[in-house]
Amino acid sequence: MNLRHWLPCLEWGRTYDRHLAMQDGLAAVIVTLMLIPQSLAYAMLAGLPPVTGLYASILPLLAYALFGSSRTLAVGPVAVVSLMTATMLGPLFPEGGAAYAGAALLLAMLSGLLLAAMAVLRLGFLANFLSHPVISGFISASGLLIAVGQLKHLLGIPANGDNLPELLPALAGHLPQTHGITLLIGALSLLWLWWARRYAKPSLQRLGLSPSTAGNLSKAAPVLAIAVAIIAVSSLGLESLGVRVVGDIPIGLPGLSLPPMDAALAWQLLPAALLISLVGFVESVSVGQTLAAKHRQRISPDNELMGLGASNLAAAFSGGFPVTGGFARSVVNHDAGARTPLAGVFTAAGIAVSVLLLTPLLHDLPQAVLAATIIIAVLSLVDLGSLRRTWRYSRQDGAAQLATLAGVLLVGVESGILMGVGLSLLLFLWRTSRPHMAVVGQVPGSEHFRNVQRFAVVESPSVLSLRVDESLYFPNARYLEDRIGELIAQRPEVRHLVLMCPGVNLIDASALDSLEAIVERLHAAGVQLHFSEVKGPVMDQLRRSDLLERFGGQVFISQFQALKALAPQLTISTLQQQKQTAASHCQ
Amino acid sequence: MNLRHWLPCLEWGRTYDRHLAMQDGLAAVIVTLMLIPQSLAYAMLAGLPPVTGLYASILPLLAYALFGSSRTLAVGPVAVVSLMTATMLGPLFPEGGAAYAGAALLLAMLSGLLLAAMAVLRLGFLANFLSHPVISGFISASGLLIAVGQLKHLLGIPANGDNLPELLPALAGHLPQTHGITLLIGALSLLWLWWARRYAKPSLQRLGLSPSTAGNLSKAAPVLAIAVAIIAVSSLGLESLGVRVVGDIPIGLPGLSLPPMDAALAWQLLPAALLISLVGFVESVSVGQTLAAKHRQRISPDNELMGLGASNLAAAFSGGFPVTGGFARSVVNHDAGARTPLAGVFTAAGIAVSVLLLTPLLHDLPQAVLAATIIIAVLSLVDLGSLRRTWRYSRQDGAAQLATLAGVLLVGVESGILMGVGLSLLLFLWRTSRPHMAVVGQVPGSEHFRNVQRFAVVESPSVLSLRVDESLYFPNARYLEDRIGELIAQRPEVRHLVLMCPGVNLIDASALDSLEAIVERLHAAGVQLHFSEVKGPVMDQLRRSDLLERFGGQVFISQFQALKALAPQLTISTLQQQKQTAASHCQ
Repeated sequence: MNLRHWLPCLEWGRTYDRHLAMQDGLAAVIVTLMLIPQSLAYAMLAGLPPVTGLYASILPLLAYALFGSSRTLAVGPVAVVSLMTATMLGPLFPEGGAAYAGAALLLAMLSGLLLAAMAVLRLGFLANFLSHPVISGFISASGLLIAVGQLKHLLGIPANGDNLPELLPALAGHLPQTHGITLLIGALSLLWLWWARRYAKPSLQRLGLSPSTAGNLSKAAPVLAIAVAIIAVSSLGLESLGVRVVGDIPIGLPGLSLPPMDAALAWQLLPAALLISLVGFVESVSVGQTLAAKHRQRISPDNELMGLGASNLAAAFSGGFPVTGGFARSVVNHDAGARTPLAGVFTAAGIAVSVLLLTPLLHDLPQAVLAATIIIAVLSLVDLGSLRRTWRYSRQDGAAQLATLAGVLLVGVESGILMGVGLSLLLFLWRTSRPHMAVVGQVPGSEHFRNVQRFAVVESPSVLSLRVDESLYFPNARYLEDRIGELIAQRPEVRHLVLMCPGVNLIDASALDSLEAIVERLHAAGVQLHFSEVKGPVMDQLRRSDLLERFGGQVFISQFQALKALAPQLTISTLQQQKQTAASHCQ
Repeated sequence: MNLRHWLPCLEWGRTYDRHLAMQDGLAAVIVTLMLIPQSLAYAMLAGLPPVTGLYASILPLLAYALFGSSRTLAVGPVAVVSLMTATMLGPLFPEGGAAYAGAALLLAMLSGLLLAAMAVLRLGFLANFLSHPVISGFISASGLLIAVGQLKHLLGIPANGDNLPELLPALAGHLPQTHGITLLIGALSLLWLWWARRYAKPSLQRLGLSPSTAGNLSKAAPVLAIAVAIIAVSSLGLESLGVRVVGDIPIGLPGLSLPPMDAALAWQLLPAALLISLVGFVESVSVGQTLAAKHRQRISPDNELMGLGASNLAAAFSGGFPVTGGFARSVVNHDAGARTPLAGVFTAAGIAVSVLLLTPLLHDLPQAVLAATIIIAVLSLVDLGSLRRTWRYSRQDGAAQLATLAGVLLVGVESGILMGVGLSLLLFLWRTSRPHMAVVGQVPGSEHFRNVQRFAVVESPSVLSLRVDESLYFPNARYLEDRIGELIAQRPEVRHLVLMCPGVNLIDASALDSLEAIVERLHAAGVQLHFSEVKGPVMDQLRRSDLLERFGGQVFISQFQALKALAPQLTISTLQQQKQTAASHCQ
């Protein structure tokens, strides 16, 4: 738990030089150009004044550079987390008000504290609750939901809702009131951004630019859209014609802000903060690992938790809202040549300069352009083919993904993800609640025991040998009781039951209780339980209970030893058979 | 899915005769005597008029006799389920009102429908969520909470609360208002019931009765307490002195009642109904299995679900409240000689006769006597030693039990059980999120591969062999990515990674995604992934994805084959070594 463990910057900082700074600086310019429209747009998506997106892209980046372990992760506002913020705060406060913005700060603070606590307490495994099908369904559905939700800005009509059954009728109802000029601006922006994403790079290459320059330059397409739109709105006086614009925003860097210290509100937001933290962490770690692997580097989940925690705390105290590592942005940062987290520091500086210089210009920025930016960005997240692939691979995983997808679209973000996680756990329990158990018999003339249903083996009528091919723990403890009760009821002549445990890696307290109940019930039925082939660690744990003293049976090293002791006639006869076989081979 | 499957009574009914009827009849008399005070008391505990306890002990017993598979389970109101009913309805409606009683009917109906649905859909595995430590902590804490909650009736003071922090101050605050005569009645009842439970049977035996007659007669002690108390109250006019009595109750059998068909209320009660159903089912199945085993019979979980579901539906339509199989009562039923569920039918008849004849007499029954009955019954459920045993056996299971116990006592019944289940799942995920993986090397001169940290083995510098000792699925999918990322970062000279999968029984969609990410990251780092020793069913499932076509590596039958193909120098050299060893042995 030393300082170097928690400050990965001490590692890469020691060898930092001018050459690295050049590369990081170039990447920072490109990421800044990409981040300005995105941060404005995602703040709007989160239901906050667009400038808070810029605020959330300054200090959080510095904090990540100090504490994070990924060299090229680009932190800041991202679509899914912004949507979750809006969904969770929308029902509580009127959008755009001071209470709403304060609650967003509180959400960022809670998220930061939770992430930092998870780092210190090594609770990163909590993210395992979000299985890949759930995450995949969640991201696709969120992307669709965001895109549909932004249509109102393209059409210039009001339409709010947390799910499709709320959004679609609201949109349809207001469709006749569509604002023509807004729609024109929005449609042109969409077309331009779509074209730029697909064709800008090849076109620029045909103009003679190198592939990397062309690629980097094409990332500036949204900035160009914003600039053109601002000029058009202000020169043509479109605001007075009803085009909704960003409006007045404060000039200057964000001051130090404190989230409202409201314990009741904090308690209310805690589940939402936990969900945002986990989703943000999973997304961020996934892109971080992919980028790190390209240089045979690795990221540490604990440092990532701490880095993202510090970022969110920084956002909470500088007028921002919840942030995490962004996928597209990090890939651009990496491809543009970023080598260390200092690229993030340079990006933060770029955003800070923009805040100082650009805020007066942003007044005339039409919301429709920001909506187009969001739509183009999130539609790339939608991957419905993944559902088909998952379903084909495994019905259970496919069902979990479908439940998440449908839940998010039809009910809402939070409910959808909880439905997916719940169904994953249910299906998992179902899958492991009936482990494979086989009644085994002796392969004649050998010391081996095999499933009686598959092999021609011999059994003693008074000794039942049952092999368990799974650890014994709470999901299957009751099944063990059922199965043994069933077998004993079917075989009235049995006097000994030997549980063969080569596949048992764990016996938890539930299974221990079940074994005790089984022992008692078997005694009542005149049957004695024994064990064979119990692994060392399992024996050690069993010795901490009084089962072994009280169950009255024996623990045999092997199933053959068990049969030799409990049904000597059988093993002797097969041994004789074995000797005869051996003898016949010699003859 | 034929009729005989769902109606186990068709089985035992075919061979029913007078001899069995005699045995069942005797048991029914004893259980009836035990059930009258219990059902009155548990109805009071559930916040309902005591007579509803009698109503809940008529039709539900008939329904269970039709559908249940246990021969000797005695169904009816039980302490824990009554407490849960009170806890869940208390905050919604004023106790004693018609709305409260209606909600209890609705709760019974929902519970009945859920249990029946679980029977038909084979969802009994849901009960596995309730691990034994959680159930054990829950039962002990409920027992304590019920006992403390009943003190108000013994003292004749008001004191309500869902947990100890609410109950204890309320009791302490009203202590000065203790009603002397009520306390005297309560204390005498407690003393008598405690004495009867411990010493009645041996005393009766000393008077010359046979052990079984003495045992059966001692079960009537609570009935005697009730009779004496009623006579005392009515002859001494104690009601006018402030002793709280049961009061006026309707005369006659319960009419057919309909639960209120309130969809909003039903939706609100659904989680509570699910919890009540699962807890009731787990308790009932556990005692049912124990009793069945004594005769080498078995009970079927599906039939038990259906039997309990039918019982609760019967309770809902005859003015009762949620019921399940009771532990003490079933043991008494069994020990008194019950042989078939017809004993339950006879018991129901006994209760019906009591309702017709006794209801006018019950007016003067003091609530303090019922409270004493409850306290003596529930204190036998408290087993705090179990916590110590569980903790000694496994810290994780002990923590889950402690969390449940503390949660129920300090927060409430519902929260406590949810905390326990949540913690069980968390600890389970934590335990399985870091499966055992070992880097293996070749045992010189053999085809065996062993952990490099434990054995003197040889490794190829360019081939990394990793053995995974666990199924690959969502709790550990990310750990696999972390671990491989770490190993590859540590070993820059590695060009091939062979995943050795003899212990992998399952690769779910999360692990498949992880493997795809790993393949991509390894390619970026110039490493190729291969598999070896993949089990048949796992191969079949992998073929349903496109991983095998796209990952670029090979699937080897054995790790030795893999090494032979990927690092021929190594295997050849060890083979030579083997030959030399063999040669040296020959010399």
